[in-house]
Amino acid sequence: MTDSTDKTTTEITTFGETMLRLAPERGERLETAESLDFRTAGAESNVAIAASRLGADAVWISKLPETSLGRRVTTEVRSHGVTPAVAWSDEGRQGAYYIEEGGEPRGTNVIYDRHDAAITTTEPDDVPLDTIRSSDVFFTTGITPALSETLYETTTELLDVDTTTAFDLNYRSKLWSQSTAQSAYEELLPKVDLLFAPERDARSILDVDGTGEAIADELRTTFDCETVVVTQGADGAVASTAEGSVSQSAFETETLDPIGTGDAFVGAFLSRYVRDASVSEALTWAAATAALKRTITGDLAVITEEEVEAVIADGGSAIDR
Amino acid sequence: MTDSTDKTTTEITTFGETMLRLAPERGERLETAESLDFRTAGAESNVAIAASRLGADAVWISKLPETSLGRRVTTEVRSHGVTPAVAWSDEGRQGAYYIEEGGEPRGTNVIYDRHDAAITTTEPDDVPLDTIRSSDVFFTTGITPALSETLYETTTELLDVDTTTAFDLNYRSKLWSQSTAQSAYEELLPKVDLLFAPERDARSILDVDGTGEAIADELRTTFDCETVVVTQGADGAVASTAEGSVSQSAFETETLDPIGTGDAFVGAFLSRYVRDASVSEALTWAAATAALKRTITGDLAVITEEEVEAVIADGGSAIDR
Amino acid sequence: MTDSTDKTTTEITTFGETMLRLAPERGERLETAESLDFRTAGAESNVAIAASRLGADAVWISKLPETSLGRRVTTEVRSHGVTPAVAWSDEGRQGAYYIEEGGEPRGTNVIYDRHDAAITTTEPDDVPLDTIRSSDVFFTTGITPALSETLYETTTELLDVDTTTAFDLNYRSKLWSQSTAQSAYEELLPKVDLLFAPERDARSILDVDGTGEAIADELRTTFDCETVVVTQGADGAVASTAEGSVSQSAFETETLDPIGTGDAFVGAFLSRYVRDASVSEALTWAAATAALKRTITGDLAVITEEEVEAVIADGGSAIDR
Amino acid sequence: MTDSTDKTTTEITTFGETMLRLAPERGERLETAESLDFRTAGAESNVAIAASRLGADAVWISKLPETSLGRRVTTEVRSHGVTPAVAWSDEGRQGAYYIEEGGEPRGTNVIYDRHDAAITTTEPDDVPLDTIRSSDVFFTTGITPALSETLYETTTELLDVDTTTAFDLNYRSKLWSQSTAQSAYEELLPKVDLLFAPERDARSILDVDGTGEAIADELRTTFDCETVVVTQGADGAVASTAEGSVSQSAFETETLDPIGTGDAFVGAFLSRYVRDASVSEALTWAAATAALKRTITGDLAVITEEEVEAVIADGGSAIDR
Amino acid sequence: MTDSTDKTTTEITTFGETMLRLAPERGERLETAESLDFRTAGAESNVAIAASRLGADAVWISKLPETSLGRRVTTEVRSHGVTPAVAWSDEGRQGAYYIEEGGEPRGTNVIYDRHDAAITTTEPDDVPLDTIRSSDVFFTTGITPALSETLYETTTELLDVDTTTAFDLNYRSKLWSQSTAQSAYEELLPKVDLLFAPERDARSILDVDGTGEAIADELRTTFDCETVVVTQGADGAVASTAEGSVSQSAFETETLDPIGTGDAFVGAFLSRYVRDASVSEALTWAAATAALKRTITGDLAVITEEEVEAVIADGGSAIDR
Amino acid sequence: MTDSTDKTTTEITTFGETMLRLAPERGERLETAESLDFRTAGAESNVAIAASRLGADAVWISKLPETSLGRRVTTEVRSHGVTPAVAWSDEGRQGAYYIEEGGEPRGTNVIYDRHDAAITTTEPDDVPLDTIRSSDVFFTTGITPALSETLYETTTELLDVDTTTAFDLNYRSKLWSQSTAQSAYEELLPKVDLLFAPERDARSILDVDGTGEAIADELRTTFDCETVVVTQGADGAVASTAEGSVSQSAFETETLDPIGTGDAFVGAFLSRYVRDASVSEALTWAAATAALKRTITGDLAVITEEEVEAVIADGGSAIDR
Repeated sequence: MTDSTDKTTTEITTFGETMLRLAPERGERLETAESLDFRTAGAESNVAIAASRLGADAVWISKLPETSLGRRVTTEVRSHGVTPAVAWSDEGRQGAYYIEEGGEPRGTNVIYDRHDAAITTTEPDDVPLDTIRSSDVFFTTGITPALSETLYETTTELLDVDTTTAFDLNYRSKLWSQSTAQSAYEELLPKVDLLFAPERDARSILDVDGTGEAIADELRTTFDCETVVVTQGADGAVASTAEGSVSQSAFETETLDPIGTGDAFVGAFLSRYVRDASVSEALTWAAATAALKRTITGDLAVITEEEVEAVIADGGSAIDR
Repeated sequence: MTDSTDKTTTEITTFGETMLRLAPERGERLETAESLDFRTAGAESNVAIAASRLGADAVWISKLPETSLGRRVTTEVRSHGVTPAVAWSDEGRQGAYYIEEGGEPRGTNVIYDRHDAAITTTEPDDVPLDTIRSSDVFFTTGITPALSETLYETTTELLDVDTTTAFDLNYRSKLWSQSTAQSAYEELLPKVDLLFAPERDARSILDVDGTGEAIADELRTTFDCETVVVTQGADGAVASTAEGSVSQSAFETETLDPIGTGDAFVGAFLSRYVRDASVSEALTWAAATAALKRTITGDLAVITEEEVEAVIADGGSAIDR
Repeated sequence: MTDSTDKTTTEITTFGETMLRLAPERGERLETAESLDFRTAGAESNVAIAASRLGADAVWISKLPETSLGRRVTTEVRSHGVTPAVAWSDEGRQGAYYIEEGGEPRGTNVIYDRHDAAITTTEPDDVPLDTIRSSDVFFTTGITPALSETLYETTTELLDVDTTTAFDLNYRSKLWSQSTAQSAYEELLPKVDLLFAPERDARSILDVDGTGEAIADELRTTFDCETVVVTQGADGAVASTAEGSVSQSAFETETLDPIGTGDAFVGAFLSRYVRDASVSEALTWAAATAALKRTITGDLAVITEEEVEAVIADGGSAIDR
Repeated sequence: MTDSTDKTTTEITTFGETMLRLAPERGERLETAESLDFRTAGAESNVAIAASRLGADAVWISKLPETSLGRRVTTEVRSHGVTPAVAWSDEGRQGAYYIEEGGEPRGTNVIYDRHDAAITTTEPDDVPLDTIRSSDVFFTTGITPALSETLYETTTELLDVDTTTAFDLNYRSKLWSQSTAQSAYEELLPKVDLLFAPERDARSILDVDGTGEAIADELRTTFDCETVVVTQGADGAVASTAEGSVSQSAFETETLDPIGTGDAFVGAFLSRYVRDASVSEALTWAAATAALKRTITGDLAVITEEEVEAVIADGGSAIDR
Repeated sequence: MTDSTDKTTTEITTFGETMLRLAPERGERLETAESLDFRTAGAESNVAIAASRLGADAVWISKLPETSLGRRVTTEVRSHGVTPAVAWSDEGRQGAYYIEEGGEPRGTNVIYDRHDAAITTTEPDDVPLDTIRSSDVFFTTGITPALSETLYETTTELLDVDTTTAFDLNYRSKLWSQSTAQSAYEELLPKVDLLFAPERDARSILDVDGTGEAIADELRTTFDCETVVVTQGADGAVASTAEGSVSQSAFETETLDPIGTGDAFVGAFLSRYVRDASVSEALTWAAATAALKRTITGDLAVITEEEVEAVIADGGSAIDR
Repeated sequence: MTDSTDKTTTEITTFGETMLRLAPERGERLETAESLDFRTAGAESNVAIAASRLGADAVWISKLPETSLGRRVTTEVRSHGVTPAVAWSDEGRQGAYYIEEGGEPRGTNVIYDRHDAAITTTEPDDVPLDTIRSSDVFFTTGITPALSETLYETTTELLDVDTTTAFDLNYRSKLWSQSTAQSAYEELLPKVDLLFAPERDARSILDVDGTGEAIADELRTTFDCETVVVTQGADGAVASTAEGSVSQSAFETETLDPIGTGDAFVGAFLSRYVRDASVSEALTWAAATAALKRTITGDLAVITEEEVEAVIADGGSAIDR
């Protein structure tokens, strides 16, 4: 059970923190619950898992404490076919988050407990740079540089490695202020080839305006990206490339658990992108996968290619027996 | 605890397979679940149970392996007042099915694991023919003859026993092809007095067309049935008899678990039919019972006459305290 | 762990029965369930808990059997900051209720099992009258006098203690008839300063009519109350005082568990009332707390002042991370 | 689903109360538990169930409230093949008991909540006397007459019905005093043909002394019984008949749940007794069934004839695969 | 729900960290578990809870983050009758620990996740010194000064407050080295009146030797304590005072969960000590409470005075019904 | 997420069936349970998992139905670092087994439901022969050839591949008779280099006799093996090689779940064997891993190298905190 990888080529490599996810049953409060659902989750491993389940060869890079809590993470990541490339550490915590999902008007509350996580001390030397170099795509999100000064610097270096780079803004107000995020994004985004930008984040942090299409175009030209995908929640998504823009509406879905929707979207997009699908096809797969994710408890898109194809074919279901 | 029956008269006798029902919690996937809800279910025992709970004297005939899995089935069937008449077998499996209920667009997925079930070798000698003969109604569904060649022949013989026969098309694409089903139905339905036909099955397998009423009329005359009930899901149901047709709309319901709705409908209909209720009254009880079933987890209509009467009285509820 | 209180002042004191609450999982029936959710609940302790959680100093008075079942109640009441003032008894049962929550058309069914509860023999001597006297508000509901003749008399005496008295009609058809309730209300309400009246109860038991505002006005003048709040479910609430009337609409909510909504409303109202908030502000807090309660399993409003403030600020949520 | 029985002959008929059984998980306290295991249990239905599962045709007579709680009882009783003969009542509670099983030195604590149970008002008219009359054996225990004055009188009358009568002392200190029990036993036991007496109860209530064999002999001659079985826990059991005495040692067992051991013993004994087995054989089956019961959670001996035979054959197990 | 206390007198005040306790079911590993049991625990609140449940008036002082995780702690502490006196903080984590209990040879594994807990910054100004001053006893353990430099200094100051001071060595190798602990103990123990010393800790950290009695004597004279209690696990305990020494053997117990045994011992001892019981009586209560604790899941001694008395009376149990 | 492997070298490759494992909670019976614990297990994947967790590079070869049930297996296998090399099939079932673990005298009962499993049709063409060829060790057990005629032939061919072969007798009376097994073993064992033989199987099937050492010697010479390890349960194990024999006693353990002990033993042995440890060291690791396994629920040895080393170092535990 080795978690260093000597893989010489891979399709998608992601880098970021994966946490323990502790959640009371729906309707229960953390303050009075006597048991918690126990899973793992993190934007970058979520993306790798969604991509892997849709056929991509994926590696996830991170740093974890060498305890059963750290192993809890690799056990789950590995189960979905992703290869973990982990720097095991004697120092640093295993990050966690507690989540209470409430209906309106209570909403969903997340309590991060990721302070001093082992990953926050990751330096480029901890990372298998050759794996990144030989990947078709290297992906991380705005969460990673927000976790520590060291990680900000490491992220900067990794985005300079010579491969196609992909990035999701993933702005988290509990991790950094809008102005700090803005400065960071402005330094990092010029290094990015393929950008995923939630419309709300783009508007609030990057001071862009107009329609989703306009935002995508503006981000693409400002940061000289190859492709920018602006995601708009229930309103779908729009992609801007040099050839023009493509829009995709969202599939209808009965939401059981919204967390991880964006990661499912990105993972599915990348799974098609690395196989040279058109941006339009990648967007459709992304939207269908995101819709499926919302019917599943937990952050992970535990889905199959056949299920995504069925959603694309008729958006539909009924009982199959 | 004997499961052979020496009952000399009964109101309703049904014949068919009852399976183990293994289901992860809503939102969980079979692929990652670590516990399963464990119940039993089968169209014909579901019907007997619904009828029994609404006051009918009911017997369920089947063949089961003589193991704790087989006994799991009779334990649950018996608990609802149905008398099991089981041929215990040293050969053959206990059938099972796995079910994942997902919201849209994922839908509900059923994995049958009923290959080589003990029941597939049932011959008429395994069956208490006198019990069938002395019943007011004998009921089975299209699932039974689809399970094996032997069962097809046994079903044919049993429908020739001299009593009122009732039959639900219950077409299952995972058990046989449309054309095989069609041939079978065409041979079996002339033996049937009281036919329940889901509109979708009637259209796709029996090549009938038009309104529900037209379909019911056509099936009745084609197969020379006494009564044909065409069920139309949320659109209700329509019955055709020599005296004309009667329609019934569906009661509104918050669906928690749709599986078993049709069986609840048929069981309730039969519970009134054997007590000489009018077709119209039987349809109303059927529709109300079906609506209640959908609020209950599992295939079984765990309801009471009082609850059905309350739904019929005002379709309604509110908190009763 | 003493449950007699020598508190010399408190803000809110309530008096009433708290029961064990036994509930199968949603979708399961009591008849077949193999495990039950186990909590405690009672209108008057629910009110004290909601008020305490919103900052009020609250005492709950009751009588309980000196068993682990009785202690189960105080353990939960105390956990939310309420001081129990309990007369421990060697006689009498610990009341309980069983609840099945079903979607439409099945509705919610409550089976009371509170016969001969220890509280039914409570006489004024069992009660710390000084605590009531030194409270800003003393609260009970129409459930308490309905439980026994002795409790009816004790309630009458307690409402005569010299403090501000508050009362919720809380009519329960399973406890007494409409005519008995009407006579009791007519005797008790003249002793009440602050009356909470569900519109439905007011109409059916107290023979008042017209709009909610008209009902509130009429009740206030008939019984010479200082303030009357008529609650109207999804239609909000209206309060009548000598200065005029104030209405409050309900906040939108996704209902997971409706039980305890009225108690959350009253508890929140009282928490602001004892701090001299305006009736209008108290109503707004009451409505927001009631909306939050409906997203939470169990009778109790396990909420915080910050959550109520957030609902009032924008009625809203979204994922907070 | 009828619970009146028109059975014209049966092997074993028992009469007594069956309660809800509410238990926290081992290691949890009632005071802090948030969920309870939910089953049903009662000495006389436990006996009928053990006998039925070992092949006897058994009827259980009782009176229950006509609620889902009362039906919870018949659902479980029926599932094990016993025919319930229930007088459904609009009055009276459904009895319950709460149980905490703790290791030493905490022990097992039972809280009865059976006050005013529906059964306490049972008169002979509520009981199908013909069923008792046509049974090979009629069985009840010392719990039944202890529940109410009315039940004491009814029990007296039922033991006078012309059939073989069997009785288990089952002294419960939480139901009546030793002296009251003694008077009752002295009046009832002369009507009993087959007596089961826990050695401890015999010593403390009936003032007998000496070895188990001596006690059995003395009880048999004092009360003119046909057979007396004295049970001695881990020391086995001894039976006294006119032909002499037979002793049986206990089988070794890993105790998971001791409750219901005595009922399993009696049910198994009766299942052989009604089929004319020797007292020695009946004792052996009783002891083996009791040993198996202790490995099973809950009061019920959910076992099979094959399992009992295997224990008798070699007392043994190992993994069977 | 206020957690600052204006109590003017109390019997026992404790000071220390209380953590979340996250545990997979026995037999499951953290690495693969999908749900965790969720409680709270900490040596000093455990002691306060045990004392409170045995009748003492107890206050627990701490510092917690103002989140639902922090409130989870006070909710549970309060439920057992202890008054929390908490400094709510915007900074610092809620400490947690993960625990896997395995049988031999796996043993019990604890993973502390208490780094940067809010309490680590507690200064004397955060603490209600008047409450300590007016307590009969002030208690803390060796865990508290081990958590941070600040806490070491604060503990030092608090032990100088003018009241009777009690202290449990509670050496934790995961928190500090033996030599650091030794220096700290040597500075703190002269301030302590009543010392609890696990024999193993005394031997390994404080370089004492000989029998338990000799160790107790030596510690008492070295540090000029009033009373020293040396605890010896299954071998019981011995107390040394100026009047001589008293020994107490351990009660037999079936251990379900050993964690918290020492805290139960100390809490029970203090509950008698503050009521002027003899050292001998206090030791007996301590040993009986410790034995009961081991039969209960979780750190807390959820017991009653009656249960402790029963253990002392006959060390015994059997089924009580 | 590809499950074909292009690995060019690996340390251990195993071949066999992995089933779903469905188990009620300890103390519950399959006949009445309402939920089942859901895991996967199979002798050959158990061995690969134990070896992988102890540092070996392991591949598991099998054939599975292409359903979520088949994927349930690979998800769990992969999570422990084993690479699945699966032929996905449209035909054949996913095998399962139901297990009830009871204390004495009930024992553990296994119901196999593996009839017509997809693996039963595996031919050499379905298997990555190069992977076997390039492995240090190829391992399978007596279960595999017992499953079907086809598998018997395939196993024969695979044992002829040019690598070191290892084999565990694993006789299962529910799969084949003693005489059939004997013939098969006699044909297969000459192809085996490293044989694991439970003493009981060796005696009953292979007609060998004497001490464990004598049996090991005899089997080694009869079948011309390099090494034979005879396992003797609580009595330890003994290995015979050309250099002589080595014996190893069993480590003491509190058994929570005995299933999978033998597989843990073999997996650990192989993990050391492929790293050229001495037979003596391999035996010690095997015995320590087997002892740890018995403290863990499920078939899998979810352990670490550190834990095994700790057991070897002192056989011990105590609480580590």
